[in-house]
Amino acid sequence: MKEQNLKLQIRILLEQNIAFGPGKADLLEAIEKTGSISQAAKSMNMSYRRAWQLVDTMNQCFETALVETQTGGTHGGGATVTALGQKVLQHYRQMEINARQALEHDYQIMSSYLKK
Amino acid sequence: MKEQNLKLQIRILLEQNIAFGPGKADLLEAIEKTGSISQAAKSMNMSYRRAWQLVDTMNQCFETALVETQTGGTHGGGATVTALGQKVLQHYRQMEINARQALEHDYQIMSSYLKK
Repeated sequence: MKEQNLKLQIRILLEQNIAFGPGKADLLEAIEKTGSISQAAKSMNMSYRRAWQLVDTMNQCFETALVETQTGGTHGGGATVTALGQKVLQHYRQMEINARQALEHDYQIMSSYLKK
Repeated sequence: MKEQNLKLQIRILLEQNIAFGPGKADLLEAIEKTGSISQAAKSMNMSYRRAWQLVDTMNQCFETALVETQTGGTHGGGATVTALGQKVLQHYRQMEINARQALEHDYQIMSSYLKK
């Protein structure tokens, strides 16, 4: 039996920007866990520059920042996920769960057509 | 008011392959419309080679082919979407509709947090 999988990607767009999506959700969780953008980036095998860009885009797209940074030290000081950041993350994960549930029926049918 | 959008991508994976996804769904529709892989590719600004690869992957991943080709002429003869191809396409589009509906509530909330 070959391995079958359903991959689901949800992105929230604001004009040309991806305000929120799979990578930003994972990064937000990593920042929450590590308390720093550089540590979060490292845990995701992502460059600090790239992580910082993702944080900057999120912060620009929402009414208030999703991540707050404290200055100091190399690569800045600590970083915290704001209350809004936590809400956004929670609704995003809920969207993933709801979408996956809604797909279940048709995915079963699709799945039965795949090579075994 | 800035333009907000919800982008949703569903992919059916079989081992390392994307058996079906957004590009393959559009290609299948274009083949149905034009009756040929080369015309379908042209209408999507896609190379014939790329379109042929996508068709080949689909055909390999499902129990029977989703697209049947007739030989002859440059770039082969006509192509038709099989009954299974039509079923797969229909279930895929249904998955997109169902997922979008399931996301509606949380997307409204997310949306309200975005910069106006």
